[in-house]
Amino acid sequence: MESVSTIALPKRRRTPVVHVKWAGTDVRMGGGCPVVVQSMTNTPTDDVDATTSQALELARAGSEIVRLTVNTPEAARAVARIRDRLDREGCSVPLVGDFHYNGHKLLKEVPECARALSKYRINPGNVGKGGARDTRFCEMVEVACREEKPVRIGVNWGSLDQELFASMMDSNAKLESPLPPQAVLRNALVESAVGSARRAEEVGLPADRIVLSAKVSGVPDLIRVYEDLAARSSYCLHLGLTEAGMGMKGIVSTTAALAVLLERGIGDTIRVSLTPRAGESRAEEVRVARQILQSLEFRTFVPEVTSCPGCGRTSSDLFQRLAKSTEDYIRSRMPDWSRDCPGVERMKVAVMGCVVNGPGESAHADIGISLPGSGENPVAPVFIDGKRWGVLKGPALDAEFHRILEEYVRRKYGRAQDSRTTD
Amino acid sequence: MESVSTIALPKRRRTPVVHVKWAGTDVRMGGGCPVVVQSMTNTPTDDVDATTSQALELARAGSEIVRLTVNTPEAARAVARIRDRLDREGCSVPLVGDFHYNGHKLLKEVPECARALSKYRINPGNVGKGGARDTRFCEMVEVACREEKPVRIGVNWGSLDQELFASMMDSNAKLESPLPPQAVLRNALVESAVGSARRAEEVGLPADRIVLSAKVSGVPDLIRVYEDLAARSSYCLHLGLTEAGMGMKGIVSTTAALAVLLERGIGDTIRVSLTPRAGESRAEEVRVARQILQSLEFRTFVPEVTSCPGCGRTSSDLFQRLAKSTEDYIRSRMPDWSRDCPGVERMKVAVMGCVVNGPGESAHADIGISLPGSGENPVAPVFIDGKRWGVLKGPALDAEFHRILEEYVRRKYGRAQDSRTTD
Repeated sequence: MESVSTIALPKRRRTPVVHVKWAGTDVRMGGGCPVVVQSMTNTPTDDVDATTSQALELARAGSEIVRLTVNTPEAARAVARIRDRLDREGCSVPLVGDFHYNGHKLLKEVPECARALSKYRINPGNVGKGGARDTRFCEMVEVACREEKPVRIGVNWGSLDQELFASMMDSNAKLESPLPPQAVLRNALVESAVGSARRAEEVGLPADRIVLSAKVSGVPDLIRVYEDLAARSSYCLHLGLTEAGMGMKGIVSTTAALAVLLERGIGDTIRVSLTPRAGESRAEEVRVARQILQSLEFRTFVPEVTSCPGCGRTSSDLFQRLAKSTEDYIRSRMPDWSRDCPGVERMKVAVMGCVVNGPGESAHADIGISLPGSGENPVAPVFIDGKRWGVLKGPALDAEFHRILEEYVRRKYGRAQDSRTTD
Repeated sequence: MESVSTIALPKRRRTPVVHVKWAGTDVRMGGGCPVVVQSMTNTPTDDVDATTSQALELARAGSEIVRLTVNTPEAARAVARIRDRLDREGCSVPLVGDFHYNGHKLLKEVPECARALSKYRINPGNVGKGGARDTRFCEMVEVACREEKPVRIGVNWGSLDQELFASMMDSNAKLESPLPPQAVLRNALVESAVGSARRAEEVGLPADRIVLSAKVSGVPDLIRVYEDLAARSSYCLHLGLTEAGMGMKGIVSTTAALAVLLERGIGDTIRVSLTPRAGESRAEEVRVARQILQSLEFRTFVPEVTSCPGCGRTSSDLFQRLAKSTEDYIRSRMPDWSRDCPGVERMKVAVMGCVVNGPGESAHADIGISLPGSGENPVAPVFIDGKRWGVLKGPALDAEFHRILEEYVRRKYGRAQDSRTTD
């Protein structure tokens, strides 16, 4: 399902390669590897059935790493059982434990949890206060060193280390030209992440087992924070807009932030933090993450349907229905195609509504159809590999176009044994 | 409904200011003015009822300019009647006519259409072939000069001037190191736009009545084309990813492309070209366009609800329902609030699912609530202007939070006469 883009990618920032491993699976992040998609469960972790089933759903949707909260001794004990259940399902997606407040205790007291996880997320703002902070932080890092696990130092402006922020505000106040508080806040986020990473290295965790994140919920702030993180360190970076919100708002905000950063070469793994609507699948955040990478031509997961927005020239209904049914057809065929037709994920399909851009856009696609707009000759020219192939018309046009599409996929991408039957 | 962001915007590219006017309305594009949102009808233009009604819907959703196709003499004659109907509805949103193939005839033969439109879109790839091309192009520009209307020179890779492209491919082939065809295609798009604009200036159209666009359907290509357009000219630029497709794919692709360009200071007006799903409102493309600008903090239209994605710590159902009902409450109150409470569109509301980032994110918002996660004390602290205000609990928590929100809006943003009743 994965291929290297044929278009030159933006120069990626250099980082060490971090390996997140389980059994035969080795997810590599940073160092120019493809940007990794991850997500997080929202089921109670101590509900082994529900969490196993959601982790499977996320992995099948394309989440290459799945994080779960580890908030109680019960949750910590459930982790190894979830891991075991996933293994028995043949799913070796690496699991990441999300720790706050009591991670130092849980990792020490439930060693099977520390082993079953492939990575630990530590939030330096939720480790403890005063002297306890450093002790607990180091305890967690020591477990990671012993178990040879990577760590994400995950800072969030909703849980920023308040002692660090207060001390930076004090120093700022003494400057001749103090910065605005928002700028000090951004600097404190970066300082908390980079300072904690340096501390982890002192404790013995190598730089190629450290990932940083520093999430805020505002797009311009996030861009600045990650530019600073990128400039101030060479650690592998996990990108995400925190608390992005619901539906279209969450999708737009996250895409805006991540696209700007990725396009500048910043970011080695991404998570899209959508609030699901009641009944909405958690896997939607995985699909959005993949679409961001595919839109930027960083990775290719699924054939895309280019379709025009329609206007007063288009016979809107016919055209919208064909665009939708073609997307649905491709989705329904992908389980077979991705097994039998390697490279099909790079295919571009166009469904266009009239003659204005229809023949041109269709000719740019691998396979395209240009429907007749109002006043046009009621036939739909089909284009294959940039050349006009023939025309379709009549009520069975949908089914006919999908049949041609199916033949095209088998002929162009099918392995030898399949191509014999269709060529 | 509009305010200037408090955060420093990226440096905007300098362009002349283009005025798109009707009656008392003067939509200004370029020259550092706020980025303008526009959209396009998909009803047959000669259906005056349907097109008037959709133009109204788009304008009410926030489309500051509405484009419609003018493809036949009937459509051209309908334009003045649509304009008149909108005027009688009190809607002075400027209308733009989209011309292909026969625009030179329609603009001359239906003068009331030329007058009723506030701007003409000319696609230099669909004007004609050979010698006819320049004649017809100049005829349209002459009408624009006479009527004092601005013109958008709108190039699209689906309808690129094939003679220009062929001649550029020929020249390229003679180079010692020819460029790849995709690069020649991008150069031809830019050349078609910039060359046509220069020609329009020769005919007498001033630069402050020219807007350029050069749309393609691939995100990295679009970014490069607009960077070139920006570098090669100082005309006002209309941004859009053409043929973006349906649903989430269309939203993500468009946002990725436009965010990268806007963040670099490129783009003075935007259109989001979504293919509507059957039954989906055309106004969705306007809402996405506004959200892109709001996410980047270029403009502010509506208060935003920040909400976390939820995880194994959150009582997911309660928290998702409150996030959704709060969004719905704000949407239902905006008609009143935007009239009585200027500035309310800048309000930030947080609805958070547990203690990890809840109190912190809520304190960063104007008003926020942090719901109890699993194992927490079952009360929800509310934060107002960064300070803890008190707690809510029990089954009426939704209604109670919305009541506090309503009071907050009236107190903070209400005009004097309103604040007396609530203060």
